[in-house]
Amino acid sequence: MNQAAPGTVAPGTAGSSAAAPGTAGSSAAAPASPDDRYVIGVDFGTLSGRAVVVRVSDGAELGAGVHDYRHAVMDTTLAATGAALPPEWALQVPSDYTDVLKHAVPAALEDAGIDPSKVIGIGTDFTACTVLPVLADGTPLSELPQFSARPHAYVKLWKHHAGQPQADRINELAAERGESWLPRYGGLISSEWEFAKGLQLLEEDPEIYAAMDHWIEAADWIVWQLSGRYVRNACTAGYKGILQDGEYPSREFLGALNPDFADFAIDKVAHEIGELGAVAGHLTAEAAAWTGLPEGIAVAVGNVDAHVAAPAAQATEPGQMVAIMGTSTCHVMNSDVLREVPGMCGVVDGGIVAGLYGYEAGQSGVGDIFAWYVANQVPQRYFDDAAAAGRSIHEHLTALSKDQPVGGHGLVALDWYGGNRSVLVDAELSGTVIGATLTTRTEEIYRALFEATAYGTRKIVETFDAAGVPVTEFIAAGGLIRNPVLMQIYSDVLRLPISTTVSTQGPALGSAIHAAVAAGAYANVREAAAAMGKVNRALYTPNAEAADAYDALYAEYTLLHDYFGRGANEVMHRLKTIKREALS
Amino acid sequence: MNQAAPGTVAPGTAGSSAAAPGTAGSSAAAPASPDDRYVIGVDFGTLSGRAVVVRVSDGAELGAGVHDYRHAVMDTTLAATGAALPPEWALQVPSDYTDVLKHAVPAALEDAGIDPSKVIGIGTDFTACTVLPVLADGTPLSELPQFSARPHAYVKLWKHHAGQPQADRINELAAERGESWLPRYGGLISSEWEFAKGLQLLEEDPEIYAAMDHWIEAADWIVWQLSGRYVRNACTAGYKGILQDGEYPSREFLGALNPDFADFAIDKVAHEIGELGAVAGHLTAEAAAWTGLPEGIAVAVGNVDAHVAAPAAQATEPGQMVAIMGTSTCHVMNSDVLREVPGMCGVVDGGIVAGLYGYEAGQSGVGDIFAWYVANQVPQRYFDDAAAAGRSIHEHLTALSKDQPVGGHGLVALDWYGGNRSVLVDAELSGTVIGATLTTRTEEIYRALFEATAYGTRKIVETFDAAGVPVTEFIAAGGLIRNPVLMQIYSDVLRLPISTTVSTQGPALGSAIHAAVAAGAYANVREAAAAMGKVNRALYTPNAEAADAYDALYAEYTLLHDYFGRGANEVMHRLKTIKREALS
Repeated sequence: MNQAAPGTVAPGTAGSSAAAPGTAGSSAAAPASPDDRYVIGVDFGTLSGRAVVVRVSDGAELGAGVHDYRHAVMDTTLAATGAALPPEWALQVPSDYTDVLKHAVPAALEDAGIDPSKVIGIGTDFTACTVLPVLADGTPLSELPQFSARPHAYVKLWKHHAGQPQADRINELAAERGESWLPRYGGLISSEWEFAKGLQLLEEDPEIYAAMDHWIEAADWIVWQLSGRYVRNACTAGYKGILQDGEYPSREFLGALNPDFADFAIDKVAHEIGELGAVAGHLTAEAAAWTGLPEGIAVAVGNVDAHVAAPAAQATEPGQMVAIMGTSTCHVMNSDVLREVPGMCGVVDGGIVAGLYGYEAGQSGVGDIFAWYVANQVPQRYFDDAAAAGRSIHEHLTALSKDQPVGGHGLVALDWYGGNRSVLVDAELSGTVIGATLTTRTEEIYRALFEATAYGTRKIVETFDAAGVPVTEFIAAGGLIRNPVLMQIYSDVLRLPISTTVSTQGPALGSAIHAAVAAGAYANVREAAAAMGKVNRALYTPNAEAADAYDALYAEYTLLHDYFGRGANEVMHRLKTIKREALS
Repeated sequence: MNQAAPGTVAPGTAGSSAAAPGTAGSSAAAPASPDDRYVIGVDFGTLSGRAVVVRVSDGAELGAGVHDYRHAVMDTTLAATGAALPPEWALQVPSDYTDVLKHAVPAALEDAGIDPSKVIGIGTDFTACTVLPVLADGTPLSELPQFSARPHAYVKLWKHHAGQPQADRINELAAERGESWLPRYGGLISSEWEFAKGLQLLEEDPEIYAAMDHWIEAADWIVWQLSGRYVRNACTAGYKGILQDGEYPSREFLGALNPDFADFAIDKVAHEIGELGAVAGHLTAEAAAWTGLPEGIAVAVGNVDAHVAAPAAQATEPGQMVAIMGTSTCHVMNSDVLREVPGMCGVVDGGIVAGLYGYEAGQSGVGDIFAWYVANQVPQRYFDDAAAAGRSIHEHLTALSKDQPVGGHGLVALDWYGGNRSVLVDAELSGTVIGATLTTRTEEIYRALFEATAYGTRKIVETFDAAGVPVTEFIAAGGLIRNPVLMQIYSDVLRLPISTTVSTQGPALGSAIHAAVAAGAYANVREAAAAMGKVNRALYTPNAEAADAYDALYAEYTLLHDYFGRGANEVMHRLKTIKREALS
């Protein structure tokens, strides 16, 4: 028997205390004229949270604030104890998220210089699947003194890949049993998602597992902190929580993985569902004090950074692929057809915009790779020269390598330093650069890594096209769009014009759009996107000569991609096994 | 018709003005008691030359001096003009070599505190094949004003690989014609050697080619500068100059490569041959003034850094493989059998010690790879920490990575950053590291590069064993033996005890041994080696557990080695082609 999802909050159907879009959800907000109303969007990224203040009428961004997470990502040691973490772990501290509410939101309000009483709603988006164990009242287990030294009590960040053995078992069993939900996820459930991480938790720290009342997405936990209500957003529930056609994986399936896991979906995961753009609740007095916002304004149902950015880029029609390019890249696209795309992360009915199938694909590491490279492989002279030239190290390395003709470095890289999400869905893969010689320069490898991520994107676009879900437009969002050289490389490699979001805070703007819908200012997300979203249409167009040259390098990438990624040589898997055994 | 080599200077057969070993070559040296006689060995490396003062009776090293080449290696620009050099070029300046005579030799004498009049001979060794165009009087063409701006007028260092297209044609034609000399070189002539570099010179700068009277090994040029006589040493003539059984490749063969190349061997290469340990001539007044040594002392026939080191390690018996580990590694070994070893650099009768077949194999990049990594991929914090700990950056990176269990980094690298000499003989190959993730640390890749060079050595040892030329002992020499962690890795990977030369100046000591023979202090090199050579027998022995763990990683190396190196995926070749075309 499958698990039916409990009560759903949908547009037009008001939940117990949650208003739906189109209904007056802003009753508690201070009265304001139609041209003088604002919403707040807060985007929770991998290393920081950023808030924007947005005008409801036209989407103008009037102010912003950023707050870095104090503990950043814990991937080598646990901050509370200094104890070493095993490979592939990536944890966070929940209070770092509420600190964003306390610092970035007031900073954004101050930056905007508006009257806070004119804010009618707040929306949020989060990295996903980022998930934590909490008590029935929402208290994170990591905040309980008896559990604060236990790594499993903390937030497992999206890029925590240590549940791969569990993901492997889930996939094997699901394929064996022919589970109907499996093809909805490209045929593979990721180690990043709720079930693999949850099974790892059960099997490695059963006491924490037993103590938790909810295995909750951070996306929903932050909404709970704002509104006092736990509403599970339809986006993560579908993409990360294997909720398909209203059901979770069955008790029988889960029990076959591990008898103690049989009730995981019922006991730990299932909860009231909220549709995107719906109101989850209203701002509590405590959260109003943190943020400086009016108590009682609409708090939108949680969302995912990637998906929420589509409306910010006015990408609400079929075939418009939005790539949110930051530490990782998520690709989201609406379509009017339901197809099985190999290696996609998932397809969820209404997962991005109601009425269309929302497809998601992704690259596990993009900006992360560039950051790793700069932190671990770049000598001081580059930093000195960058400082002398008054530019960032990324700008400097980009400038040094940009004028070399395509292929002039003789390199091709695989962009798998953080594993491969789409189209191979294999977190055990790893990165490599082929072609280095004793005259290879630091900046040449940097550019090869840029190009590798573009090849990875082309692999995704080609896979969608081949599966009958054509990509007709490519819209880039996220922090990396600030690098015009990177954008031009993508255009050349993809042989597609590239549009970019006008806002460099695409997800935060998207959250603000959802806040406006939750507050009742627009009838639905599509209408709000039309009024508030913005895009620079075809800002980059392919250079024919460069595109031809890249075709040759992409052919090499494809050969290596298939050799290392499709079973011909599973050296990357074996190296990870050897590593785990050596360090155990 | 093949080219007969002109007059040969052999032990026991005194040349026109060159005495052979065993004859009194020290007539011009100041009288000295048997216990109070000294010889000088000078080792010309890739970046510097070092001289040692050695006691004839027991090989004691009493003093040393080092001098860095002012122009180092020109691999990106030509110093004289600042003009860019194409990829794969590596040039040097001849006066940097004579500067070593002027600075390092006097420094060594001063360091030793001996009476220079008691020095009875000087011997030298050089990187090879390092080759330059000169006039009939030995003047390098690069020193003529009309040619000083022409890259082809300069010394082509051993690692100049831009003659690969020419090497390819030589190999193709030789295989097609079934040239008898081809199997003596493992079936492939390297782009590093005299004929490929000479053909490149002819085809890219025919004016320089026409102007040169000799295409001379730097090993012989420096002896010419010391003695005033041009004697072509048997070692480079055999290993690098394709002199086999007294003949060079035929006019017909050379003319088929390029009609203008038909007389290359006769006109540019062939010259009087001197056997190893013979006296080439006597120190000129000019060279005596440079060095502070007595005019007229014996100057030994030139030699190669690798080969000359075998006697320094007392490795004059069959099966004793000596690995001279510096920027690159050369492996030399005597054997009493003549076999075709795939991918060896060459086998020359008497190429190391008279009366045995001298085998040579090599790895194009070893210390060079570590140096490239440190210069281009290591952030400042490592240099800061190294300085704080009072150790070199190499010592520091070694210390950081040494205690991690084997395989704990999850990496396997291919040591082909400088191409692959043995056993693939393919300068078009390139380096790679497989297995990097976003948590991979700088020092982990450094160690993976250490290990990769050890795997490359194991590949060579296994190939010799399989060809019926068993390696029974492994003796390491060269600068890298100063790193005990690296040596232990080699012992574990090879599953062999590793002996090391006592001297860290193995080649320079070997040159001094040859100087003693040339001066008549010993009857032959074997006797001199017994008295003057020294070795730490089995200083490192394999750790069984580490060796087992390395077997698993070596299996991965072998898979990748064969995939990238034996034709399954010629991506590395294609990337070099793409690079050349992009930059042309």
